[in-house]
Amino acid sequence: VTMIPSRAPLLEALEAYRARKVASFHVPGHKAGMSYSSAPEAAWLGTVGAYDATELPGLDDLHAPNGPIAQAQALASDCYGADQSYFLIGGSTVGNLAAIHAAAARGDMIIMQRNVHKSAIHALMLSGIGAVFVTPEKHSETQRLNGVSAASVEEALERYPEAKAVFLTNPNYYGMTMPLERIAQAAHVRGIPLIVDEAHGAHFGFHRRFPMSALQSGADVVIQSTHKMLSAMTMGAMLHVKGTRMDRGLLELYLRMLQSSSPSYPILASIDWARREVHTKGEALFGAALTAIDHMEQALADHPRFALYRTHDPLKPLLYDRTDALSGFTLLEALAEIGIYAEMADERFVVCACSSATTLADIDNLLQALDVIFNRFPDEKKEIRHNFSNTNLLQSPSLSKPVYVRSRTDLAASEVDVESAAGAYSAEMVIPYPPGIPLLYPGEPITEEAVDALLRLREEGARVQGVMDRTLRTIRVWREPF
Amino acid sequence: VTMIPSRAPLLEALEAYRARKVASFHVPGHKAGMSYSSAPEAAWLGTVGAYDATELPGLDDLHAPNGPIAQAQALASDCYGADQSYFLIGGSTVGNLAAIHAAAARGDMIIMQRNVHKSAIHALMLSGIGAVFVTPEKHSETQRLNGVSAASVEEALERYPEAKAVFLTNPNYYGMTMPLERIAQAAHVRGIPLIVDEAHGAHFGFHRRFPMSALQSGADVVIQSTHKMLSAMTMGAMLHVKGTRMDRGLLELYLRMLQSSSPSYPILASIDWARREVHTKGEALFGAALTAIDHMEQALADHPRFALYRTHDPLKPLLYDRTDALSGFTLLEALAEIGIYAEMADERFVVCACSSATTLADIDNLLQALDVIFNRFPDEKKEIRHNFSNTNLLQSPSLSKPVYVRSRTDLAASEVDVESAAGAYSAEMVIPYPPGIPLLYPGEPITEEAVDALLRLREEGARVQGVMDRTLRTIRVWREPF
Repeated sequence: VTMIPSRAPLLEALEAYRARKVASFHVPGHKAGMSYSSAPEAAWLGTVGAYDATELPGLDDLHAPNGPIAQAQALASDCYGADQSYFLIGGSTVGNLAAIHAAAARGDMIIMQRNVHKSAIHALMLSGIGAVFVTPEKHSETQRLNGVSAASVEEALERYPEAKAVFLTNPNYYGMTMPLERIAQAAHVRGIPLIVDEAHGAHFGFHRRFPMSALQSGADVVIQSTHKMLSAMTMGAMLHVKGTRMDRGLLELYLRMLQSSSPSYPILASIDWARREVHTKGEALFGAALTAIDHMEQALADHPRFALYRTHDPLKPLLYDRTDALSGFTLLEALAEIGIYAEMADERFVVCACSSATTLADIDNLLQALDVIFNRFPDEKKEIRHNFSNTNLLQSPSLSKPVYVRSRTDLAASEVDVESAAGAYSAEMVIPYPPGIPLLYPGEPITEEAVDALLRLREEGARVQGVMDRTLRTIRVWREPF
Repeated sequence: VTMIPSRAPLLEALEAYRARKVASFHVPGHKAGMSYSSAPEAAWLGTVGAYDATELPGLDDLHAPNGPIAQAQALASDCYGADQSYFLIGGSTVGNLAAIHAAAARGDMIIMQRNVHKSAIHALMLSGIGAVFVTPEKHSETQRLNGVSAASVEEALERYPEAKAVFLTNPNYYGMTMPLERIAQAAHVRGIPLIVDEAHGAHFGFHRRFPMSALQSGADVVIQSTHKMLSAMTMGAMLHVKGTRMDRGLLELYLRMLQSSSPSYPILASIDWARREVHTKGEALFGAALTAIDHMEQALADHPRFALYRTHDPLKPLLYDRTDALSGFTLLEALAEIGIYAEMADERFVVCACSSATTLADIDNLLQALDVIFNRFPDEKKEIRHNFSNTNLLQSPSLSKPVYVRSRTDLAASEVDVESAAGAYSAEMVIPYPPGIPLLYPGEPITEEAVDALLRLREEGARVQGVMDRTLRTIRVWREPF
């Protein structure tokens, strides 16, 4: 079974289990979905319940696999070009937590892109590992923050040779990417692994129009939300390892510790399914969806109001109002009222997360909805206040000092005037919005530059999240490091 | 909605979402299950896929609930008599991890029953919190290790007044319980919370024949696997808080950090369903199942070979061979070959995990299977070697010294003769089997008593797991504490 892409060992084992089961005296208590038969509104739970099994003979054990789970993971490694793949049932969240825990020890330090998913920050908080944060670059056409430059990572590695790993997020939520190859090379020169949170890029590398995948670019550890851009059930994800720079024994230890001891078989089987789909169909899987999105782009080419911006990921078109009459937020809400649910919005853009399952009918529905909205909001009065100057706050300095992000804020913090905060450690997460990227993390040393940035934010009347005093007259600080 | 037990706010919200959705431009990528329509063997994934949503308008946010998830959790609090209930999508595992992280800080210490689920030990390893382990008592009739005595917890609290919490597991895997009320009182006298891993007891307190629940007994924090003995999908669990001895802000912080940022709505909805079922039906939910199990007990009353032992939990009958001809292990395997899957086995017993969904048909299938097995294994040649004397190793001393369980075994350990190990710190988990309860945890100071126990194990030729040298001539140790 192991190396036949068209097989789905775990999905097949689950079906075989269902067929041969006579009676269940094991958990779960719903007994193969029987519990749900008492009410019609739960019929769908009954259907999946028949497959909601546990570690029974023939069904292997996620935490010590040597049967169909091991086979399914081996097929995933083959599909992605990894040396070892792990199925995750706690989303990319648990992959990020485990990878960071395994990459370094308490008191060690890693190089981390500042605009990472919160799970990467949580990993620092839980593990006591420190980070030097690298400021992301701005994408010139959209003014959104993207990845970091290879030069800034190289500078970080130069200044902090004790760093144990480099952690990046690629692509960002908008489908923008950074070139990873030079960064991977720089990490490897130091003998440390490049870990990439590729949560939104599980499909990368499977179509000529998609960006290269992190594994193809030389990353050592890659975490992917198989449920986001491919077809696994929510919380189904994968972690891939290539090479020996990551200690797999430690990684497996942390995955065992951080994941449920009763993993969901439906989610696991859906990962197997998603792998089979992309493994066997390759480019053909995405053809119809790409054609449909291209069609939408053309249909809107001469539209007086709405347009699509295509980022590096052609499955993540950004919808926007050319006249700036409607903000992304308003557009998202207006679409939702019509039953069209998009992924997220900012002041300008609505992010449309498409996938291989996106159809021409979906696109037509979206186009029709835009007509309805056009008629509802005909005028072009601008409602957007662009405030992107704040992103410049992050451009200098490009590297933070080492930060040990604190988790227990019950430690006594004091409130000081922002003007006199330099030299102390921030007890708050200071998040100017937009762009929503923390200027300071809890535990971060407050530099003179950070004080200047805070004063400018105050002067501009910027919106700031995470702080007690939203007028930015004062900030809560600790006098001592972690 | 909030206080009407017959409502299931989240299940209803999910159905409403499915009905009003026109097109999806959000994750998950399977687009309401559309991806699974390409192959008949994945039809069941398509059915549940229609409900595998994400944080969309009307569907609330598990990590900051104020809609149907908040309402569903409030109904759960009402049902269980908690002040606050949290739905978990990472099983009791994540509840144990979060509760222990929130109960104390690195370097602090808690009182913990020695035979806890591995997730409780993992919480110590991840958090750097120490534990004084309390030796469990032996259940006299079955010789299985059960809970701890109130007296030994009181002794621990007396000797370690700096302890921040008491952590217990109740019931054990066999459905045996300990009296919790006096232990709760002893903890409360010290002003610290009693945390109970009630993974196997989500049904407790809902029928006069069931033991009292941990919340009813005065526990402050209770973690339940709603999927094990009630009818949630696997990984669906709850954490209940009563009173103010647990800092809920910290608890919520750790739940946010340790759980997926993309929680599974099918699992969440199934927790809501399971709560509604037990909330509205109460005792009536379990009547038929209890009658069926009682029938089995009677049917086997005069059986020459097989019998049921009923523990404190009447839904956990232990099946065994009166003649000891078949071990529990063999019996479990023989049943599985017939398609009857039991929960687990030891040298003597097969644990049958029943639930409200257990039917007379299930019981009849089991009885028929026992007839088949009886005919296949007619002779009474004993195959069991009882080795329960090992459990006595744990009876003295009843309390460990404070142990800081280590997670990173990459720290240099040295191998020493067991005879000269006293005074060092174990670098291995030493698990005599049976009973499978660690005699030493990694990081535990090795006392003279522990050396004596190891020498006795060696002499008896006991099976020992977790150690490098299974002959117990040597043991790996650290010279320095954590």
